[in-house]
Amino acid sequence: MKAIIIAVGDELLSGTTVDTNSAYLAEALALRGIETIAHRTVGDNARAIADAIADAAEQAPVVLVSGGLGPTKDDLTRQALARAMGCDLVPDEACLAEIEAFFARRGRQMAEVNRIQAMVPAGAEPLPNAFGTAPGLVGRVGEAAVFVMPGVPLEMRRMFADAVGPRLPESGLSIARRLLHTYGTGESDIGAMIADLMGERDGAVTVGTTVSAGLVSVRITARATEPDDARRDADAILDDVRGRLGTLAVGTEGVTMAPAVGKLLAERGQTLATAESCTGGMIGQMITDTPGASAYYLGGIVAYANEVKIDRLGVDAELLRAEGAVSERVAEAMALGCAGCFGSDWALSVTGIAGPEGGTEAKPVGLVYIGLAGEGRCAVHRHVFPPPRRQVRQRAATAALNHLRLALLPR
Amino acid sequence: MKAIIIAVGDELLSGTTVDTNSAYLAEALALRGIETIAHRTVGDNARAIADAIADAAEQAPVVLVSGGLGPTKDDLTRQALARAMGCDLVPDEACLAEIEAFFARRGRQMAEVNRIQAMVPAGAEPLPNAFGTAPGLVGRVGEAAVFVMPGVPLEMRRMFADAVGPRLPESGLSIARRLLHTYGTGESDIGAMIADLMGERDGAVTVGTTVSAGLVSVRITARATEPDDARRDADAILDDVRGRLGTLAVGTEGVTMAPAVGKLLAERGQTLATAESCTGGMIGQMITDTPGASAYYLGGIVAYANEVKIDRLGVDAELLRAEGAVSERVAEAMALGCAGCFGSDWALSVTGIAGPEGGTEAKPVGLVYIGLAGEGRCAVHRHVFPPPRRQVRQRAATAALNHLRLALLPR
Repeated sequence: MKAIIIAVGDELLSGTTVDTNSAYLAEALALRGIETIAHRTVGDNARAIADAIADAAEQAPVVLVSGGLGPTKDDLTRQALARAMGCDLVPDEACLAEIEAFFARRGRQMAEVNRIQAMVPAGAEPLPNAFGTAPGLVGRVGEAAVFVMPGVPLEMRRMFADAVGPRLPESGLSIARRLLHTYGTGESDIGAMIADLMGERDGAVTVGTTVSAGLVSVRITARATEPDDARRDADAILDDVRGRLGTLAVGTEGVTMAPAVGKLLAERGQTLATAESCTGGMIGQMITDTPGASAYYLGGIVAYANEVKIDRLGVDAELLRAEGAVSERVAEAMALGCAGCFGSDWALSVTGIAGPEGGTEAKPVGLVYIGLAGEGRCAVHRHVFPPPRRQVRQRAATAALNHLRLALLPR
Repeated sequence: MKAIIIAVGDELLSGTTVDTNSAYLAEALALRGIETIAHRTVGDNARAIADAIADAAEQAPVVLVSGGLGPTKDDLTRQALARAMGCDLVPDEACLAEIEAFFARRGRQMAEVNRIQAMVPAGAEPLPNAFGTAPGLVGRVGEAAVFVMPGVPLEMRRMFADAVGPRLPESGLSIARRLLHTYGTGESDIGAMIADLMGERDGAVTVGTTVSAGLVSVRITARATEPDDARRDADAILDDVRGRLGTLAVGTEGVTMAPAVGKLLAERGQTLATAESCTGGMIGQMITDTPGASAYYLGGIVAYANEVKIDRLGVDAELLRAEGAVSERVAEAMALGCAGCFGSDWALSVTGIAGPEGGTEAKPVGLVYIGLAGEGRCAVHRHVFPPPRRQVRQRAATAALNHLRLALLPR
């Protein structure tokens, strides 16, 4: 079963707004065994929308459209669906009553412009909107079922769950997805390690890689008629890939770097504190993004100014002067000072030159020292990350967490 | 002048990854007076990509493609461009040398799979990639210029700036854009304040609003044949809007909340320190995202565990027990303790319940206290932000910075 997703809106076409609806819908379809074969984005133009719907309906039995159901003059998806269906818009009394009730609940009167939202293509069916005034629509264009939802993500998601999902045809196909995040080598090296599993294959399982936030992720998609078969096939490949990657494998699904470190700390019942200079709090932020981080993260010092390194972390002022803030020995002193300060099992320190200014030949922009204190030792790692500033910081924070992850892995 | 944007990747088609490249490219084209008439997303399938390129080349003289230039077997855009151009891939020695140099600079050897990245459709031209191994490509399909860039956003953006933008045809139309970020009220209220400037107008200047990361931004786009005219028109509307919004206006272009606060601190020659509990370092991270933040940001304490609030910030243990960590008086003690600790002119503290667990009827998820100490006073502000966790944290960090911004504004 195939589907095409259409996003409607000048703000999407012009790039003012990033389209998140299409990705959401594609994932929701995939979990129902329906494969998205294309996304389209069109502007607020009734003819362009109608053409896109008609074209999609020729290629796929399921077409999902989001956007263009608002009450203003530039909301034209309703009219476009009527056009693609070859019929007129007719007023729907039940819809009108619902829209009036929506306003009444908020103590407001319905504006005259909202009347258009109760118009439905003859032969189409309105879909309830729990969070807004615009009802959705479902109609037939040729052999295809065309579902139209509002563009506001919250309204669209709720309408998909309540009204669109249950009306989708059975695909007869089950899809299982697995995502494995890796850290420590480039996409090409990962690709080489699993080359025999990748590429254009007609088989039931496809494997690909993507890069996001410094991690290379392996995507596994298995298709089968029985859900259990799809899951089993996906898990078999996942195990295979994980076995090949060894300690490069960080975690699956939502377990990216920080959650992986958190899990390992929690399993050991150990605690972490951080001493951040150039990352300015980013490691703390990443760690505490995971609910329950208080089980293993005590806190940290953001030691941006040198005086803070001296006063809060006990870094020797003379050492700072002699070696500079961005140096192996200062990273070491920061990590040891931090562990002492917080009484944590582990302490991570980061000091570096994020740029764009401040680099020298000996200490270029991107130079970062990461200290890791714990189990009676303190190791310092030197990195040079590529600019720009944001990437240096993000890579430094991720690398720091990875040094801790490797130290925590069972040997 | 019209353009079509194509995004390539199974991870986009399946919804695993949200496509941000297409919005970026559409904006960049708009600034050059080139109108995007459609976006397409296709999977990692050479034929589908080639068909999409050929189809787009019939409809628009400019086609931008991102994604599918990696070294692995599922990267097929290079092959697809050759197919659409009706030619073969041939090795490019200069490209190969650059890729080898890229690895050499990192002290690594080029993997054999990367060799494919030095293959170029005969008649196409490679485009340099400052941040990665995959060169871009530009070739002709019929009357259209087709530009292919990597999918990694950082690489794509730099390549667009360096190599694609300068090669785009002249549109004969100048576009000036202005972006004004606001904080403190909703999008509909901002819309009501500038309603007469918004909506569908045939004039040369259009005004719209968007919401991102808790800020409502007003977007002004002016079109004219002369660049000076477009700039003048845009600036006139910008001044008008800014005048109406007063202290709601945070900054223009890249000056979102943290840079706005940084500018005000730098102007006054004052310093800031932070004491973060539920935001876990996010405020420090936001502040230090701006180059030169060391001029005004000293550092902070991430006081995630209660012991850290007691030991590092001097919060009274008895107060913590009696009032709870998420309370007005603890926020106050954290801010005062932080200012004392760091000797900064200003100190911000945040303590709250980010969720999803930990809420009670009296202290629900989303409850956040923000303390601001400075100029001999300490104010505490109470907020309740809507879940989920990530939103509570991000809103709390932004609200904290806004309290400081308002305190720093000239009276």
